[in-house]
Amino acid sequence: MSLSSTFGKHLKVTLFGESHGSHVGVVIDGFPAGMSLNYEFLEHEMERRKPGQTPFSTQRKENDMPKIISGVYKNCTTGSPITCLFENSNARSGDYDLETLVMRPSHADYTGYLRYDGHSDPRGGGHFSGRLTVGLVFAGGLAKQFLKQNGIEVIGRLSQIGKVTDVDHFLNHHDYLTQIQNSDGMTDVYFPMISMAKAIEAKEYIETARINRDSVGGQAEVLVLNYPAGVGNPIFDGIESRVSHALYGIPGVKGVLFGSGVNFASSFGSEMNDQWFMEGNKVTSTTNHNGGVNGGISNGMPIQLSVVMKPTPSIGRLQNVIARHVESSKWIEMESSINGRHDPCIVPRALPVIEAVVALVLLDYWIESVGLLNERG
Amino acid sequence: MSLSSTFGKHLKVTLFGESHGSHVGVVIDGFPAGMSLNYEFLEHEMERRKPGQTPFSTQRKENDMPKIISGVYKNCTTGSPITCLFENSNARSGDYDLETLVMRPSHADYTGYLRYDGHSDPRGGGHFSGRLTVGLVFAGGLAKQFLKQNGIEVIGRLSQIGKVTDVDHFLNHHDYLTQIQNSDGMTDVYFPMISMAKAIEAKEYIETARINRDSVGGQAEVLVLNYPAGVGNPIFDGIESRVSHALYGIPGVKGVLFGSGVNFASSFGSEMNDQWFMEGNKVTSTTNHNGGVNGGISNGMPIQLSVVMKPTPSIGRLQNVIARHVESSKWIEMESSINGRHDPCIVPRALPVIEAVVALVLLDYWIESVGLLNERG
Amino acid sequence: MSLSSTFGKHLKVTLFGESHGSHVGVVIDGFPAGMSLNYEFLEHEMERRKPGQTPFSTQRKENDMPKIISGVYKNCTTGSPITCLFENSNARSGDYDLETLVMRPSHADYTGYLRYDGHSDPRGGGHFSGRLTVGLVFAGGLAKQFLKQNGIEVIGRLSQIGKVTDVDHFLNHHDYLTQIQNSDGMTDVYFPMISMAKAIEAKEYIETARINRDSVGGQAEVLVLNYPAGVGNPIFDGIESRVSHALYGIPGVKGVLFGSGVNFASSFGSEMNDQWFMEGNKVTSTTNHNGGVNGGISNGMPIQLSVVMKPTPSIGRLQNVIARHVESSKWIEMESSINGRHDPCIVPRALPVIEAVVALVLLDYWIESVGLLNERG
Amino acid sequence: MSLSSTFGKHLKVTLFGESHGSHVGVVIDGFPAGMSLNYEFLEHEMERRKPGQTPFSTQRKENDMPKIISGVYKNCTTGSPITCLFENSNARSGDYDLETLVMRPSHADYTGYLRYDGHSDPRGGGHFSGRLTVGLVFAGGLAKQFLKQNGIEVIGRLSQIGKVTDVDHFLNHHDYLTQIQNSDGMTDVYFPMISMAKAIEAKEYIETARINRDSVGGQAEVLVLNYPAGVGNPIFDGIESRVSHALYGIPGVKGVLFGSGVNFASSFGSEMNDQWFMEGNKVTSTTNHNGGVNGGISNGMPIQLSVVMKPTPSIGRLQNVIARHVESSKWIEMESSINGRHDPCIVPRALPVIEAVVALVLLDYWIESVGLLNERG
Repeated sequence: MSLSSTFGKHLKVTLFGESHGSHVGVVIDGFPAGMSLNYEFLEHEMERRKPGQTPFSTQRKENDMPKIISGVYKNCTTGSPITCLFENSNARSGDYDLETLVMRPSHADYTGYLRYDGHSDPRGGGHFSGRLTVGLVFAGGLAKQFLKQNGIEVIGRLSQIGKVTDVDHFLNHHDYLTQIQNSDGMTDVYFPMISMAKAIEAKEYIETARINRDSVGGQAEVLVLNYPAGVGNPIFDGIESRVSHALYGIPGVKGVLFGSGVNFASSFGSEMNDQWFMEGNKVTSTTNHNGGVNGGISNGMPIQLSVVMKPTPSIGRLQNVIARHVESSKWIEMESSINGRHDPCIVPRALPVIEAVVALVLLDYWIESVGLLNERG
Repeated sequence: MSLSSTFGKHLKVTLFGESHGSHVGVVIDGFPAGMSLNYEFLEHEMERRKPGQTPFSTQRKENDMPKIISGVYKNCTTGSPITCLFENSNARSGDYDLETLVMRPSHADYTGYLRYDGHSDPRGGGHFSGRLTVGLVFAGGLAKQFLKQNGIEVIGRLSQIGKVTDVDHFLNHHDYLTQIQNSDGMTDVYFPMISMAKAIEAKEYIETARINRDSVGGQAEVLVLNYPAGVGNPIFDGIESRVSHALYGIPGVKGVLFGSGVNFASSFGSEMNDQWFMEGNKVTSTTNHNGGVNGGISNGMPIQLSVVMKPTPSIGRLQNVIARHVESSKWIEMESSINGRHDPCIVPRALPVIEAVVALVLLDYWIESVGLLNERG
Repeated sequence: MSLSSTFGKHLKVTLFGESHGSHVGVVIDGFPAGMSLNYEFLEHEMERRKPGQTPFSTQRKENDMPKIISGVYKNCTTGSPITCLFENSNARSGDYDLETLVMRPSHADYTGYLRYDGHSDPRGGGHFSGRLTVGLVFAGGLAKQFLKQNGIEVIGRLSQIGKVTDVDHFLNHHDYLTQIQNSDGMTDVYFPMISMAKAIEAKEYIETARINRDSVGGQAEVLVLNYPAGVGNPIFDGIESRVSHALYGIPGVKGVLFGSGVNFASSFGSEMNDQWFMEGNKVTSTTNHNGGVNGGISNGMPIQLSVVMKPTPSIGRLQNVIARHVESSKWIEMESSINGRHDPCIVPRALPVIEAVVALVLLDYWIESVGLLNERG
Repeated sequence: MSLSSTFGKHLKVTLFGESHGSHVGVVIDGFPAGMSLNYEFLEHEMERRKPGQTPFSTQRKENDMPKIISGVYKNCTTGSPITCLFENSNARSGDYDLETLVMRPSHADYTGYLRYDGHSDPRGGGHFSGRLTVGLVFAGGLAKQFLKQNGIEVIGRLSQIGKVTDVDHFLNHHDYLTQIQNSDGMTDVYFPMISMAKAIEAKEYIETARINRDSVGGQAEVLVLNYPAGVGNPIFDGIESRVSHALYGIPGVKGVLFGSGVNFASSFGSEMNDQWFMEGNKVTSTTNHNGGVNGGISNGMPIQLSVVMKPTPSIGRLQNVIARHVESSKWIEMESSINGRHDPCIVPRALPVIEAVVALVLLDYWIESVGLLNERG
């Protein structure tokens, strides 16, 4: 079900707003009725995405306090659309030149301009802004809480920051949870990596880029533990299809890979096949190269995926840009550097967004599997 | 629009059939009316996917002759659903054991069994079989012909076969077409690589795997030239979302990456930003790291993407499998090797399927952009 | 989920073909796995729609023998798309003038011509033909069988034929089934009315029209017994929305009404409110003016709806038409009478189609409610 | 595209909120960029739906002042989702008993309770409330303005109020506009009927019902003038399918009929066929029984449809109801009368909602026809 600002089949998430408008927000339609909201957990998730939590993220202040205006009654979900608003209290329109419309490199300024015939809101990326993802984190927080109440965990880490790579994949899927729990690096909720040493190195890497007025890309990895087997659909409605579809809605995502990802390309079948065993009555496999999905359907192993993110295109260096001269309706070449406060590396703040999207898609499948009449789990 | 065997919004492709049933086929709904079919071109595309064209693909014979039963009148598309059947003339059910249902590693046998409560057709992967993609190539052939008549080219190559990598990306997007035309490697339609030397090396690599009863993964790269700028939609309906969604419907796909793909993760913004210039009246950029898409919308540069494919899971070696004993309804462990004739590397035959899917999605957007009343171009 | 030749959310039905092409057919995606086909019942349903069964329907011979080519293995549904073909063995293209394209009044010839820029198949209505509904009856037969195995009955009658009206609605919803079983009129499967006397009168009415080279409209009523309460969705995804959406896909349908239908307009709330009572532990109401649906969701009462059909536009009288002169590309006025064999009243043959569509939509909701993992009932 | 609180394919309207929550609202995604809002017109449309404008509507005060929080920049649509909030300033929760949950007859209280397992907001119908339609009128106002700028008029009237029927259909579609302009009855924007005498009679009819603590049903008719021919799609994506689908989302709608509606059932083909003529170069027909649609596609004649609405179920008389006793979780029978202020006839206030929905669906098709890149008209 693909509408431009909506995704989902039963659990439908619609984003609205612009970075410099009065509010951004989200409508979540189809969320199961009867869940009491855990505000502490929601707040925690919102914090992870919030700017200014680390020196590596933009020091802009955003008001991420969610204001729920529908779908919750007596602190409990009603089954009706949950709408949540976020005020744009700290919008600084002055950061952006509104007379000549500058098309920043690798941003959506130019394509948005074409697509909407010059009428898109030019301030701060408008509807294309990463600010919109605040609603995803809220929605994903609800989804995560629901999944967790049904025993399913969604866990993310920063697997790569620039040239610094964390421990290469989890070693053995049977020990995923143990590894995570024993890792000091994972306790830093704003910068979770398995290796604490790598985390320190990665932070330094970002800091160097920041000083150089540059930015850094990276990869995020998401693990979903205890997701039931047999959920999903074949061919064009498989888990990989719907998860990647939704993930590409996050600004900056340029790659989505499942299980062993790019390693598949350079490997032999004899290395990559996940052979089957019985563990008592339970069907299992020792390896999990396929990332828990075969033929679009979950196989009972942990679901594992990686997301490649490009470096934030907003950098403080002089770049060649084009600009639309509003009066003359002409394109002109100019040099421009992007001022304002921007994240030298967006991956740490994108991580909770990525986890949120994965949780939302997997909850959607879960509802589909158990049925609207049985969705309380 | 995601149904399990259908994708597309205006141009909707539905696959049906099982590898060992009487037919597989495709329904293409929403194809523009008024295109005269170029059978020679369609046949060429079908040939590229056909097994047995090279020593590296399975020697099974498949009858890939398309039988069009609707939507074409006087050799011209009518706008009504185009249905095309392919007879399964060479199905050899004897290759598969039907009494004990063996769940092959890294196949969809086990997940399909769970999803359909034991009722899925167990012969040769049933509805999950790669055989289904024959309909995609047919549909994609129509789409490619249409796009070509509107000046748009869809070109694919094998960018990696196992540990053999072709020239690393195209050098400069302004010369894409020249590079392709000057490359001897690209003239081998069953095995197109830019470097002929690498192609020879890659073939040997596959042959060695085949002798070892093993299989090899790889990557395919697709380029779309002359696609108009300003086409696509923001957030959850962007080109990357819909293209990756559809590509993950192809058996064996485990990663989809746009533009510079994994390289984004290890790079700086200053390296990856595509700076804008004017080329006369035309907005352009020298680099094309973003693969022609910003914010889900085409920017006028060539659209470029890579697909990671896992090694064919069917290998002739002994593997640990589980099997459903039909009479006792129990899972049992056993060792099994997969006989029958299988591709030691599926990537060359998957390439035309991948191109087809990309062409179909981009035609869908194109129709959306020009409108149903103007779709003749 | 609205595609031009597809409807349904989980249970998706796609029609293809043209009346004078080689085949018409249907793809049914999402049908529950594990149902053994009752061919006798399917054949019975097909018979009801078949032309030539009564003097009141066209004497054209159609080959309605279904040829299933996918989705059924060992006589049992697999969960994969079920594809069924119907050969157009008796197409008589000579009945239609192909040089000058005559646009018959109240047919889709003219609108189809515009929509597809002159490329639609002009023979016998092409893809707009009532012939396409043969696939719906097949699909609906499967749905009815499945629902029946879960205790749900879908029953139709001719409530009005021209100026002849059957007993005005069923008298009391508690006795629906008894009334139907005690009615001689309902045993005539090709012409079911509650009053046998009215049925005889209605047949005479049609026969008179036929002799006058005219045609007759009518109404069909459908009852669904034992459908569970609490199924459906609010606002834009309610039972009335999805049922009417699909019913308007049947050629000739011009009105869809639920429960007391037009009588609501001339009545008081005090007459039309269905007051609630307890019948032991069961919530019930004596009246059923709302036709079993409140706020888009089933309330446990029988679901009841009426469909208004226009008189067959194909009549043997001289009419003013326009025609497209192919060579000169001009519209010209002419007089024309429609020869060939046409139904003087389509409602009896449309009745099984209408029942089929209702059964399909209600099975779709049922699957949604119980979940894909529990769909075997 | 059917989600429970969303409809539309390109132009997607999502409703959220509950009658007694803080706000209700609407998200309109896909609205063409570049339209300057005509606030005077929007306000006029909102007024028509507002309670308390006539003695015949509820005297409840509602704050219908729209607060636009996204999608509009410098008073101009940007192409991004337009979100509009309406404060529920006058909610009087005291009107409703929250300890015992009374299930009002013919309301969605009982079905909503089942569907959401007891968690739906029980106050004033919650998400099922007619209050939600305020967002539809706002969205429809935008659509009407856009259509009007492209020459297309959407006009509604009250064709029936209880037993009082306005002039039976418009006399001749060529004179529709003249008839409307010459009719004194149509100038009463809160109660438009062609015959002023009938309007007076209808108002008296409602007033009598109100005094009797009763309510009255009716019919609304909508005309769309100058809609282009050739727009729409065949079979399951036709204008009748999508319009009726959306209209059934309005609380109280129980029938949707096109053109001559129920009259088709009692008529002959020779009476109902719209014969074709040429009017200069324009294809036309004198009659318009088909209401401007053949085979799901517009034929250039005015689009005409009727909507049957049931009498408001909220009446001040004692009725048999069931109630959920919250503590004991048991259903109990009781007698209850509905206090509070309710409309004795909802049709006049529903009329702008119905027009709005028709305008939205027809704008959606229009966008589809001209294409996203050409949508400015």
